[in-house]
Amino acid sequence: MAPTTPRLVVPIDLNNKPWQQKLPLHNRWHPHIPPVAEVKTGEVFRVEMVDWTGGSIKDDDSALDIKSIDLSTVHYLSGPIRVLDKDGTPAKPGDLLAVEICNLGPLPGDEWGFTATFDRENGGGFLTDHFPCATKAIWYFEGIYAYSPQIPGVRFPGLTHPGIVGTAPSMELLNIWNERERELEENGLNSMKLCEVLHQRPLANLPSTKGCVLGGIKEGTPEWEKIALEAARTIPGRENGGNCDIKNLSSGSKIYLPVFIEGANLSTGDMHFSQGDGEISFCGAIEMSGFLELKCEIIRDGMKEYLTPMGPTPLHVNPIFEIGPVEPRFSEWLVFEGISVDESGKQHYLDATVAYKRAVLNAIDYLSKFGYSKEQSYLLLSCCPCEGRISGIVDSPNAIATLAIPTAIFDQDIRPRANKVPVGPRIVRKPDVLKCTYDGSLATTRNPSSAT
Amino acid sequence: MAPTTPRLVVPIDLNNKPWQQKLPLHNRWHPHIPPVAEVKTGEVFRVEMVDWTGGSIKDDDSALDIKSIDLSTVHYLSGPIRVLDKDGTPAKPGDLLAVEICNLGPLPGDEWGFTATFDRENGGGFLTDHFPCATKAIWYFEGIYAYSPQIPGVRFPGLTHPGIVGTAPSMELLNIWNERERELEENGLNSMKLCEVLHQRPLANLPSTKGCVLGGIKEGTPEWEKIALEAARTIPGRENGGNCDIKNLSSGSKIYLPVFIEGANLSTGDMHFSQGDGEISFCGAIEMSGFLELKCEIIRDGMKEYLTPMGPTPLHVNPIFEIGPVEPRFSEWLVFEGISVDESGKQHYLDATVAYKRAVLNAIDYLSKFGYSKEQSYLLLSCCPCEGRISGIVDSPNAIATLAIPTAIFDQDIRPRANKVPVGPRIVRKPDVLKCTYDGSLATTRNPSSAT
Amino acid sequence: MAPTTPRLVVPIDLNNKPWQQKLPLHNRWHPHIPPVAEVKTGEVFRVEMVDWTGGSIKDDDSALDIKSIDLSTVHYLSGPIRVLDKDGTPAKPGDLLAVEICNLGPLPGDEWGFTATFDRENGGGFLTDHFPCATKAIWYFEGIYAYSPQIPGVRFPGLTHPGIVGTAPSMELLNIWNERERELEENGLNSMKLCEVLHQRPLANLPSTKGCVLGGIKEGTPEWEKIALEAARTIPGRENGGNCDIKNLSSGSKIYLPVFIEGANLSTGDMHFSQGDGEISFCGAIEMSGFLELKCEIIRDGMKEYLTPMGPTPLHVNPIFEIGPVEPRFSEWLVFEGISVDESGKQHYLDATVAYKRAVLNAIDYLSKFGYSKEQSYLLLSCCPCEGRISGIVDSPNAIATLAIPTAIFDQDIRPRANKVPVGPRIVRKPDVLKCTYDGSLATTRNPSSAT
Amino acid sequence: MAPTTPRLVVPIDLNNKPWQQKLPLHNRWHPHIPPVAEVKTGEVFRVEMVDWTGGSIKDDDSALDIKSIDLSTVHYLSGPIRVLDKDGTPAKPGDLLAVEICNLGPLPGDEWGFTATFDRENGGGFLTDHFPCATKAIWYFEGIYAYSPQIPGVRFPGLTHPGIVGTAPSMELLNIWNERERELEENGLNSMKLCEVLHQRPLANLPSTKGCVLGGIKEGTPEWEKIALEAARTIPGRENGGNCDIKNLSSGSKIYLPVFIEGANLSTGDMHFSQGDGEISFCGAIEMSGFLELKCEIIRDGMKEYLTPMGPTPLHVNPIFEIGPVEPRFSEWLVFEGISVDESGKQHYLDATVAYKRAVLNAIDYLSKFGYSKEQSYLLLSCCPCEGRISGIVDSPNAIATLAIPTAIFDQDIRPRANKVPVGPRIVRKPDVLKCTYDGSLATTRNPSSAT
Repeated sequence: MAPTTPRLVVPIDLNNKPWQQKLPLHNRWHPHIPPVAEVKTGEVFRVEMVDWTGGSIKDDDSALDIKSIDLSTVHYLSGPIRVLDKDGTPAKPGDLLAVEICNLGPLPGDEWGFTATFDRENGGGFLTDHFPCATKAIWYFEGIYAYSPQIPGVRFPGLTHPGIVGTAPSMELLNIWNERERELEENGLNSMKLCEVLHQRPLANLPSTKGCVLGGIKEGTPEWEKIALEAARTIPGRENGGNCDIKNLSSGSKIYLPVFIEGANLSTGDMHFSQGDGEISFCGAIEMSGFLELKCEIIRDGMKEYLTPMGPTPLHVNPIFEIGPVEPRFSEWLVFEGISVDESGKQHYLDATVAYKRAVLNAIDYLSKFGYSKEQSYLLLSCCPCEGRISGIVDSPNAIATLAIPTAIFDQDIRPRANKVPVGPRIVRKPDVLKCTYDGSLATTRNPSSAT
Repeated sequence: MAPTTPRLVVPIDLNNKPWQQKLPLHNRWHPHIPPVAEVKTGEVFRVEMVDWTGGSIKDDDSALDIKSIDLSTVHYLSGPIRVLDKDGTPAKPGDLLAVEICNLGPLPGDEWGFTATFDRENGGGFLTDHFPCATKAIWYFEGIYAYSPQIPGVRFPGLTHPGIVGTAPSMELLNIWNERERELEENGLNSMKLCEVLHQRPLANLPSTKGCVLGGIKEGTPEWEKIALEAARTIPGRENGGNCDIKNLSSGSKIYLPVFIEGANLSTGDMHFSQGDGEISFCGAIEMSGFLELKCEIIRDGMKEYLTPMGPTPLHVNPIFEIGPVEPRFSEWLVFEGISVDESGKQHYLDATVAYKRAVLNAIDYLSKFGYSKEQSYLLLSCCPCEGRISGIVDSPNAIATLAIPTAIFDQDIRPRANKVPVGPRIVRKPDVLKCTYDGSLATTRNPSSAT
Repeated sequence: MAPTTPRLVVPIDLNNKPWQQKLPLHNRWHPHIPPVAEVKTGEVFRVEMVDWTGGSIKDDDSALDIKSIDLSTVHYLSGPIRVLDKDGTPAKPGDLLAVEICNLGPLPGDEWGFTATFDRENGGGFLTDHFPCATKAIWYFEGIYAYSPQIPGVRFPGLTHPGIVGTAPSMELLNIWNERERELEENGLNSMKLCEVLHQRPLANLPSTKGCVLGGIKEGTPEWEKIALEAARTIPGRENGGNCDIKNLSSGSKIYLPVFIEGANLSTGDMHFSQGDGEISFCGAIEMSGFLELKCEIIRDGMKEYLTPMGPTPLHVNPIFEIGPVEPRFSEWLVFEGISVDESGKQHYLDATVAYKRAVLNAIDYLSKFGYSKEQSYLLLSCCPCEGRISGIVDSPNAIATLAIPTAIFDQDIRPRANKVPVGPRIVRKPDVLKCTYDGSLATTRNPSSAT
Repeated sequence: MAPTTPRLVVPIDLNNKPWQQKLPLHNRWHPHIPPVAEVKTGEVFRVEMVDWTGGSIKDDDSALDIKSIDLSTVHYLSGPIRVLDKDGTPAKPGDLLAVEICNLGPLPGDEWGFTATFDRENGGGFLTDHFPCATKAIWYFEGIYAYSPQIPGVRFPGLTHPGIVGTAPSMELLNIWNERERELEENGLNSMKLCEVLHQRPLANLPSTKGCVLGGIKEGTPEWEKIALEAARTIPGRENGGNCDIKNLSSGSKIYLPVFIEGANLSTGDMHFSQGDGEISFCGAIEMSGFLELKCEIIRDGMKEYLTPMGPTPLHVNPIFEIGPVEPRFSEWLVFEGISVDESGKQHYLDATVAYKRAVLNAIDYLSKFGYSKEQSYLLLSCCPCEGRISGIVDSPNAIATLAIPTAIFDQDIRPRANKVPVGPRIVRKPDVLKCTYDGSLATTRNPSSAT
């Protein structure tokens, strides 16, 4: 008789704050954060996780909590989990760690989530120059489906996934990260052309003691101080996986992660009930607490066997993934296109980011014809199962990016028709998203052709 | 009794050169290129097309034709076709032209195609700094399937589509194009950061009399000279659709094109038996001659109804698409990830193009473990039905792009395994692609970690 | 703030026997079985259920429990649940009850199931004349996947569903059932041709006090005696839905059930982790305990609006279903065909049951080439996500039935190849299913061409 | 350079009658019908085919041609084609012939088809007792789509396939067929219970000289007379494949056919633009002329290797299939259920044919709520891509069959709604099917609950 119920290796008590959990959480990447649990290859184990903000965002009637959020504290991760093979030998640097997602979902009793845009001066997002205000929508779950009181007229099945799955970096890799990101933070505004188009700031999030949580390392000790100043922030995905936000990593998927330190030190967090490609509003998925049921294999020497470094060192690698067999199935898609010409009409050179920005803006404006506010569409396209594609990347000077939206998520037919789209009160999508004022002084990017 | 066979409005005789066809072809966008045919809404009509090079590339044993190709002559398009409604009133500026692709395929008797990379000094491509040589692979079709003698061990069903579907621009729109692209061509090398990473040149392809073909406008006349110097090149996709290279525009798809001049003046060309997202090698699809069976509707005033301009004028719009119901169906995908850190290890800011470049490089290196040369993989990922996604675009500083490859196209299991991948002669994929020397002096981008 | 966690209306304690649960279960259909709970339209509620045998079958090393099972006690159902609209008005005869399956799964802590064949003299099954012995396989769940120690080499994602969802019959409908089934039981062996081909007995399962459980009706009372002699057994699906065993009724599906008595009296049970079309081995799904999260709507007068009776009374109707969007996705299928010629070579007339029997026998024999015992294949085809189709039903005299098996569930390639299938020890699929002796004296149906 | 265009081995001239084609056609199965062409394994070849009636049915305004059709002349097949391996050695008895469908479609210039029900006294069909009249609907093709003037409000992509693909039987197999079908024809009406429920007659179609066409065997010769009296009719599918009418055998599919005589003698015909599972109206697909592009492999001794006979001789086998990757993709299905209780209320024993009949009747009555005539629905469900499943075959006494209809084929939402379905003139689906009178005297099966 086999053990059938996954062993709970990281429990979460939703009545407690992130720093009061039975096993300590962490919100930085560092090789010296000690493992909180051990698992063997082949066993199915369960990891529970707080939402990425650790409960800062409430199911209430205001977006003020979003506006004032302290982003230095994110993301709260569960782990690290040390992985051993069946003989008890730990994963070693150079191995690949194959992590299968056997199951996942919201934590029982906490079946809700939120999607939000940050204030332009506290977080921003892909379109923060168009939408500088903090906004929030609450989503409730009905089993596989989510709906939002703030975005009426849509309901869709979740493609639930963890935003973050990663292994611990070695000190060598950590140093590489810190160096290259510091260089960007210090010089990027002048040297990076995309900064004219993307207004999210800061350019990079460097190590800081503020908000730092280091698992079993006791705050205030010299060790803590040292590690806090070295440990990488969790916002970007990097060579260790991390915050990849790949929306298709749902049940049945497999992630092949490089191992940089003994034991692999696997951490997970940032559960998403659903997300669109790009997670455009930044707090852009349906963010929630949740659980993962995982099974690990170790492919010995797999980094050398399967990964070729792409960069100056053998550590410049990226994970590989396999997508699972149970994604929601849609047959009809409406597709918006963007080219690498920005809102001012300026031509960019094969820039897929600019092209995707234009595709998203096109889609938001289109949906506003059907009664949605632009803020509703911005949040919706962040979190619904839409696909963002790099369609053309060689036809100079225009990159072509596309955004495909499954039409079945709407309760009306949103395709173009020879007769006009419905107008007037009957398709006004009320109420609207929860919204704060923007109190800053940065100029909004204007779409010269748009009245609003 | 209804007419059942589509009316052939643009015939192609494959024994003739592009300039010898019964109806003249064209390879520029200009409002004054006269229509060669007229169709009514609701009727199904057939358009035949030469391949984008007009037959310059041969089914032979050499890539020399690729190396020496004259890119000023591309793409040869069929049309323009003037569209009228059932009452005989033409489409008008401000309308939307809905074009349904009822059917499409290779021209009978010409069931083959090619995929190629240009020489770095004559065309280039997404990875031209890594692969500066002209290469070529021939593909033969077996009904829905394609296989290549130069890339053994793969066979896949085509997601056949036209690379180019577009309406004629108005003079006003044409001027916008020419101005913004000239500005890039003249100043881009200094101001565009991506130029350090993407080495395809020129940055833009401006109007030129060289190679210009203007349909019914007689070459050598003053009118021809004037138009040739104004008419936009067909390489990039733009507001009128054009060379969008969206690989999912197959049978049953619908394209909603803005109408800029009376009659819409629809042109099509650049048929692809199959293409991967991004068409990375530039001559990257399985290029072929072919036919389209189309049906048009006119949505009167549809531009205002459904499109919001994104830019300084009401002409800054983009088409919308619906994807058809008969795409090849794959259930298992292997996914490669890239982050916006380039080959030198330099950190870029949320740059999806850099991230996609790294994802593609990762995939090419991975496949080389299974016996493919890197040139084979580069061509394969250009033309097989792989998906390129913008997965994360907000987690500063790293954009995350992914490239998903359907595993069923290979005759071996390419997924990572605990036991090593097969090595040695039995998986050498011979012969290799057809290849020329690179005789230029530009330095190759080195992957410092790679021996090759 | 909305209630987000489904209200638990029928709890199950797995440490208790079926008759010891907090709310009484029932295993018969009768209008007088009193509701155990009430729900309102629009609310999401949770129902927990024992497995169909109420825990009689154990996760152990023997099939003896299957051989000696008391089939008079099945199926243990949860409910009835009385359904009211938001105003408190109950569903009424003539309404349609739309039941959405928002979520479902095994009960936490009980993540295993079993598939079995009954002894020919105690239950039988579709192929009981070929496989007269009781056999059993245990399945363990790893999140969405199931695997069995007794059927090595396969693993597949579950298409989890309830075998039984039904409303209570009215007395009039109950009388119709009892009358027509008694007629069959009494005269069928002589008049029904299929009895020569299908050897499962009895032909029908008539009301009996033996094993009868009637929910809130106290056993031993005169009321209990009366109802027990009237109440319909739960084995066949009928006009009220019931044991339909439709394998696609998974998350996101919707069932439109006719309402025959006030309140509808909805009951559910017989949870399946996975099942193949036909559920051929009778105890043929992966049987388990489980939970459903449901949401009801009432379509007033919907029976008249949407259903046309097919038979002598307005009660001769059948439910309608919609299939949900999250089924496991397979792209490659191997298909076996059967025609309506039986094992003796006798020609039957357009008999889809005979054709499907032959298709299944063909598939079992085919799989035995790949190292499976026929008992393993019989159980596997009962419970894996295979599709059984009526392909041709008009080409006299042969009905054509097909059985399609997704090839991805096997760890080897089971398609025919020009080189022979692997033979010898390395593909012997050991251990085999758990198996009892058959001690009866009925003759096995021989396949004259088969050595075994 | 490879040959790229499939070699045309059987041409059809649509201006000629079936008996005037360049290569003779045949409409019987017999080992002595001489091959008309030879192909080698690995080569892609093209076979053209008349429609199954050889052009008897016209694109006109009357169903009279259906009513008076001579069924003794069907089906006109192209072939036999003799298959050799690359060394010139023919396929041999005991081999498996793997036939890949590389491509297929209507014949150019003949892009239309028809669906029909025969008169009850000349052909019948699955529901001939309910619908005794000859009816006809014409379908026109727009590329991948079909629409019918007689069934307004639906349009769907075809899952095009050949109804008939088969190898020639040996004399031994032919004798088995003739014997078992004669036994049924002579004694079936008394012994077969389904004859009370299915009223299509005759029970079997025995060899006859009437209408017989034997390819290269000259009519009127003694050899012709002898063969005509032995040769099997093509109506039922049998051990050699033949008229299997499996709707999923579209592009990219593979059929593994047993070889009974030297050269295999492959024949094909009865092209369908689209068909529903069961092809219920008998002339039930969208019948058309068409072409196949095929590629053969020979698996030597494959019958023994992969097929186990099921019956008294080694010849009692059935083909195996693999389904191709390009089927139209639907995500939403409405499902109708039937149980094995007939229209009179009589209980049958696990009879999938009776259950499917009830499921189909339920679906027809349902669709009539949305403005369709029952005749329109009967023809539509015969030819649209609906799925017929054997859902439950063990829950005595009720077999459960289901019919799933993709909702996207309708131009209105046909799902049940809390508000009533639309009524009145705006959803009357006019015009109706073309229809003849029924002049016979057989009683119609009444649905006692139905007014019509």
